[in-house]
Amino acid sequence: MSTATEGKRFTPGQCLEQVHAKTPLIHNITNYVTVNDVANALLACGGSPIMSDEPDDVFEITSICGGLNINIGTLNERSIQAMSVAGSRARSLGHVILLDPVGAGAGTLRTTTAQMVVNTARPNVIRGNISEIKTLAKGTGTTKGVDADAADAVTEENLDEMVAFVKAFSKKVNAVIAITGAIDLVGDADVCYVIRNGRPEMSRITGTGCQLSAVATAYAVANPDHMTDAVAAAVMLMGLAGEIGWSRMQEGDGNSTYRNRIIDAIFNMDAKTLEEGAKYEIR
Amino acid sequence: MSTATEGKRFTPGQCLEQVHAKTPLIHNITNYVTVNDVANALLACGGSPIMSDEPDDVFEITSICGGLNINIGTLNERSIQAMSVAGSRARSLGHVILLDPVGAGAGTLRTTTAQMVVNTARPNVIRGNISEIKTLAKGTGTTKGVDADAADAVTEENLDEMVAFVKAFSKKVNAVIAITGAIDLVGDADVCYVIRNGRPEMSRITGTGCQLSAVATAYAVANPDHMTDAVAAAVMLMGLAGEIGWSRMQEGDGNSTYRNRIIDAIFNMDAKTLEEGAKYEIR
Amino acid sequence: MSTATEGKRFTPGQCLEQVHAKTPLIHNITNYVTVNDVANALLACGGSPIMSDEPDDVFEITSICGGLNINIGTLNERSIQAMSVAGSRARSLGHVILLDPVGAGAGTLRTTTAQMVVNTARPNVIRGNISEIKTLAKGTGTTKGVDADAADAVTEENLDEMVAFVKAFSKKVNAVIAITGAIDLVGDADVCYVIRNGRPEMSRITGTGCQLSAVATAYAVANPDHMTDAVAAAVMLMGLAGEIGWSRMQEGDGNSTYRNRIIDAIFNMDAKTLEEGAKYEIR
Repeated sequence: MSTATEGKRFTPGQCLEQVHAKTPLIHNITNYVTVNDVANALLACGGSPIMSDEPDDVFEITSICGGLNINIGTLNERSIQAMSVAGSRARSLGHVILLDPVGAGAGTLRTTTAQMVVNTARPNVIRGNISEIKTLAKGTGTTKGVDADAADAVTEENLDEMVAFVKAFSKKVNAVIAITGAIDLVGDADVCYVIRNGRPEMSRITGTGCQLSAVATAYAVANPDHMTDAVAAAVMLMGLAGEIGWSRMQEGDGNSTYRNRIIDAIFNMDAKTLEEGAKYEIR
Repeated sequence: MSTATEGKRFTPGQCLEQVHAKTPLIHNITNYVTVNDVANALLACGGSPIMSDEPDDVFEITSICGGLNINIGTLNERSIQAMSVAGSRARSLGHVILLDPVGAGAGTLRTTTAQMVVNTARPNVIRGNISEIKTLAKGTGTTKGVDADAADAVTEENLDEMVAFVKAFSKKVNAVIAITGAIDLVGDADVCYVIRNGRPEMSRITGTGCQLSAVATAYAVANPDHMTDAVAAAVMLMGLAGEIGWSRMQEGDGNSTYRNRIIDAIFNMDAKTLEEGAKYEIR
Repeated sequence: MSTATEGKRFTPGQCLEQVHAKTPLIHNITNYVTVNDVANALLACGGSPIMSDEPDDVFEITSICGGLNINIGTLNERSIQAMSVAGSRARSLGHVILLDPVGAGAGTLRTTTAQMVVNTARPNVIRGNISEIKTLAKGTGTTKGVDADAADAVTEENLDEMVAFVKAFSKKVNAVIAITGAIDLVGDADVCYVIRNGRPEMSRITGTGCQLSAVATAYAVANPDHMTDAVAAAVMLMGLAGEIGWSRMQEGDGNSTYRNRIIDAIFNMDAKTLEEGAKYEIR
């Protein structure tokens, strides 16, 4: 269901085809909890992953890539320095940079590191849950661990307000903003996608957010002139993969099998399936 | 088969229901080998994971959690410092602390780090294989890598002696002691559960012990007044999940699929299934 | 199909039986992306894994093992020091050492670290893709990220030249050389196995190369007097597991399920299946 397209916009399927055609190589500075799933999700979507978080290695590694995915999930002194070095280098080369501010608001080091990346690397895309994004936008948040606080949630009731928030924050930091939850928002200063793909059971698996950030980086790299459309397409892809993966669950299966089936569904996604399964409107 | 209950004891099913009701948030300082399975096992059992091992991050992160799981499987200078900082903070807040002394006895740094955690964080629960626990209790051990030495095994022949050892060591360090192997022992100064769930094939998967430690932390956090019962329930849960997972294996399946099926079985476990499948006696 | 054997050579099945009989304990200093799969692949093949990358821990840990697998996939200052300490210790004890120079040629730190390991630990086995091995042999390469450059590939057209390259480089560094790709080469100064097992889809999963390096270490440890045969057997095992795993794929399965099925196939491999499925010639 494609409820809205503009002449100049890329549809989700068009964005997917660009990724498949270009096999973007993505440098990931990411946490060690979900890193294997991040690599396999990147391969599944048609990209190619490389991981490095040593300051003396990242300058050269990020130079040979098309994009940089910075995820602060298990940050440490060394990896923060690597984020700084790689972020500056990727910015100077004009590479796409995505920030996933995992746990911003839950601890000072996470909040200040995420702010450092925003201010110095100036990411093209920021993807997080609502508590993390609010922390970046307002300098405060109620993040509970790495999950969003229920009080912050995007709902049908506050949707207009949240869409306005996305556009305003995007304009302020000059980045595509992606807030994921039961309802996903992906927007820039002018437009905001409201996306209703996904399954609540995805929150019972670790790493679907991390996987999405990596996949969204690949989508943005492959669609440099349609970056908002591309990030929205990646969000739809992940949500639809969650739906397809769930539909293949059998009696006795649980979250570990579901994890595999979601990545499998990313692997098997084609443009037609994504176009037909995408549930979104543009505001 | 519940062969023994006391009026004041919580049954395994009661312990499970507390976890499901409370969704305990657990801070894990753990190894990078099995960390993804640890996170998914925590989510499967009804808990919620957060990982952090940077000294400048752990003070705040552990503060917002209900319990702390310290696993020394791939310890390093930074993570040891994080264990110290987080351990002190969690102790001062009265949080549940569990220590998994992976490889204690196999190397001096592991042994001294495990002893440091015991002495400074004063964990509420210590879970390991017999070689690791003996190393902590006696300052010596015959740990071969990260697996227990066969000469140390708990058997039907030395069971009385081992039950007495568990009670004495528990009294000495004021912690619930869990020794897992072919026969599992979980005890405090007064009582000792003898548990006979599980499958020998679980040793052909990496990380079932690490998963159990994280799940046991969640169980202890959710059952603060019945910590021995709760840790025993977690051990039964893991063993029974191993049995259920094995029963779903098909021709051509191996240890990788078995890994998924065990976590799936944890995900699907309910109080009734756990009560009926638990095989234990209390001594 | 065993197209070539000599009286004194071990067949792939004989090599496998030695691993099953001896359960070699392998110390891995490896990257955090694929480390869980490396551990499960080692367990699947009949070995036993232990991971440690802290300089103060590795001296003792490697001492109790039979072999050392050094993989530079996510190297950092600390792990490089650990490679140096463990490499020297393992060399002095006469342990088998394997080097997997992940990304050598893609960045200076990777290239110099791989060269440092070659020169100081003097590995018995070096396994990589063609771009990585050429970098080590010639001090230059065209590595694109962690994947080989297509221009470097081993093909039917340049096979004679590449076999000669393997023998010459093996003689120079006194190590078994394993170059994996569409066609795999495993050789020493005198002979070179040309292996045609495997599936192209294996490149859509992260970590099959890392798994192979760990498994090859176990095979070399268990077959100390037939190390070239043993490493070749490990390469055949991995490729054949890729073929068997693929044959079990069902509609809707993707790279995540394929990952599980490959490790499952390693777990279930016996000598007879490996002998019948191995596709190789010796030059």
